[in-house]
Amino acid sequence: MFTLEGCRARRKRLWDCVPESVEWLLAADPRHVRYLSGFMVNPFSFSHGERGWLLLEREQGATLLADNFAIRSAIGEIFADREVVEAWYNHQTSVINRDHALLAALNSVAERLYGREGAVEAEWLPVGAWEILGLDRESHSVTDEGRDGVEPGRAVDLGTLIRGLRRQKEVDEISLLEMCMRATEAGHVRAREVIRQGMSEFDVYCAVQQAALEAAGRPAIVYGDFRANNAQMPKAGGLPTGYRLQAGDLFILDYSVVIDGYRSDFTNTLAVGDASDEQRMLMSVLQSAMEHGEAVLNPGTPAKEVYAAASTPIRESGLGAGIPHHAGHGLGLGHPEPPILVSESDDVLMVGDVITLEPGLYLEGSGGIRIEHNYLIMEDGYQRLSNHTISLD
Amino acid sequence: MFTLEGCRARRKRLWDCVPESVEWLLAADPRHVRYLSGFMVNPFSFSHGERGWLLLEREQGATLLADNFAIRSAIGEIFADREVVEAWYNHQTSVINRDHALLAALNSVAERLYGREGAVEAEWLPVGAWEILGLDRESHSVTDEGRDGVEPGRAVDLGTLIRGLRRQKEVDEISLLEMCMRATEAGHVRAREVIRQGMSEFDVYCAVQQAALEAAGRPAIVYGDFRANNAQMPKAGGLPTGYRLQAGDLFILDYSVVIDGYRSDFTNTLAVGDASDEQRMLMSVLQSAMEHGEAVLNPGTPAKEVYAAASTPIRESGLGAGIPHHAGHGLGLGHPEPPILVSESDDVLMVGDVITLEPGLYLEGSGGIRIEHNYLIMEDGYQRLSNHTISLD
Repeated sequence: MFTLEGCRARRKRLWDCVPESVEWLLAADPRHVRYLSGFMVNPFSFSHGERGWLLLEREQGATLLADNFAIRSAIGEIFADREVVEAWYNHQTSVINRDHALLAALNSVAERLYGREGAVEAEWLPVGAWEILGLDRESHSVTDEGRDGVEPGRAVDLGTLIRGLRRQKEVDEISLLEMCMRATEAGHVRAREVIRQGMSEFDVYCAVQQAALEAAGRPAIVYGDFRANNAQMPKAGGLPTGYRLQAGDLFILDYSVVIDGYRSDFTNTLAVGDASDEQRMLMSVLQSAMEHGEAVLNPGTPAKEVYAAASTPIRESGLGAGIPHHAGHGLGLGHPEPPILVSESDDVLMVGDVITLEPGLYLEGSGGIRIEHNYLIMEDGYQRLSNHTISLD
Repeated sequence: MFTLEGCRARRKRLWDCVPESVEWLLAADPRHVRYLSGFMVNPFSFSHGERGWLLLEREQGATLLADNFAIRSAIGEIFADREVVEAWYNHQTSVINRDHALLAALNSVAERLYGREGAVEAEWLPVGAWEILGLDRESHSVTDEGRDGVEPGRAVDLGTLIRGLRRQKEVDEISLLEMCMRATEAGHVRAREVIRQGMSEFDVYCAVQQAALEAAGRPAIVYGDFRANNAQMPKAGGLPTGYRLQAGDLFILDYSVVIDGYRSDFTNTLAVGDASDEQRMLMSVLQSAMEHGEAVLNPGTPAKEVYAAASTPIRESGLGAGIPHHAGHGLGLGHPEPPILVSESDDVLMVGDVITLEPGLYLEGSGGIRIEHNYLIMEDGYQRLSNHTISLD
């Protein structure tokens, strides 16, 4: 669960990055409203697809803007200093365009922003909202030109700024991620129990997501790769099909459980029937790749070095030039997100990053195997967040 | 599944509502991009939360704008004449702000729009996109003033226009709704089988959503009211809790299955143990309310008359002044949406509306009961879309 302390810490870090002359910020990406206030419309509600916006003022604190039914559909507690809620539906009269209720909420705070320098999240705030604000001192950097009243080059790229902050997870985000991890582990245990010849990929999905939900104790979105492959067709990814598992298949279970916007993302590959010697050899090379990657998981390590380290056992085994996709990536409110662990990455690991390592190989004659763990980068290295068993059987 | 014919019919109806001088339209609400092109990011994918935009040109047809991973995460087929896809991630280098890939896709078509009259969906198109377009002949009506080059009062309220069109369902939308109905019926059957004293509300949710998924044969979002009530506390709604059912409770199962953006929404109430005489009497009044509502389901009937008709048996029974909430509402890509069946509604039923009727009563001493069916309004009345059993036991 999010906490007031967590939201305050995130807002403080944001204000620390903004020029002192900027008095207010308007976040509009639903993930960023969530990040800074806890508010998100529950995807398991009739309001899914609706939004709220978050106004942050240096002096007056946080104001959440929403319609009356979006507020009712919030996941968990809202950590804003005030809520401006516009009635959209009253169970007595016809409804207006629901978006216009949100615009009306914004309209009721527009006057106090006028003439004060601010910044909006220009990738998400709609033009209709922008015009209601009627501003002449706002700034953003989606276009290169400065706005009237803002020096060129002073424009605040609010969306990119928040995306950068998201890497450094706070305590409440980590506890939410740990809930996702436990639910995902439960699905991996269930998969190991149930996978057998004759089941469909979709049967496996149903069993896994059911176990994950039971462990989470609440509705959650379960997505990822739920596909079988084999020695002739070693590559397959995506949501489950009706294909029925056959002896000799490999089932790559690479999936996420999303709780309140945050997600896990880890993998095991299970053999249907007995694994072949080639498959066991592949698995042992990938486990070595993961260990080599783990060995360099420290703040300050360039992401490309993690890729290189995890690729070394693969290159040395002669099975490939390296991992044929990313060695891993950041995760949290999104997936994949920085740091991106690839051969030409400019990213550098930092304290608070939550990342995956996911070496894989997909070889004709053997089949496709991928394994994956999730890690929190810490001052002295890392803490592994996922605790599922990695094994073909 | 959506079809090319369906998308073309929806686009034609939209163009038929737009002044002839308008040469292009830019839709940005993800539901409206879905409605007009079939494109939607799968909520069961890592790209959930991302978007595409749809440019419609009177002469050149439909152009979908998206990043390369959002396109990969689409539900089903895309019915656009062309796709402008900007690379966001290549598995080799770090990533940019993902939103900027979408803006870059828009940038690549901006030049050909310049100087031509168009209309944007101002409630959703971000200000960053607006500025990239650099237009002087665009129009929208979120603010009352006309834009330069557009006569005042000629501005197109694109979002509200599309919301209005959504009421008249095409054949492909109805077939998708029917998939939702079948999955929801399966959940109602399962609930009847499993509900018993000692189960938690969340246990019921798990069983119902599992049955719905098995029937759908694919991942789907299952949301709604999964709550027990009793004679002392007759009102409860929302997602399931850990509360364990007791003899004498009533379980209101009012839920939706969302497939590719579309949803069902129907209800039954089950007694835990034996229903009381009062509860059976309540149920029979509500069944009469539903029949009275069904009797006036015709195109041209004012929505408030449906409310009044369905409320009559309740008033005559002396149990209440009428249904204590809406008698029903439209549904499809959203929920609730027009027509809104309430006492002061201005809406009028029309051919192609898909609506619910959901009489309910929540009485201290008896408990809360609600029942609900879904209907398609047709030239000669209606077709009932839901076929679950309505009964306390």
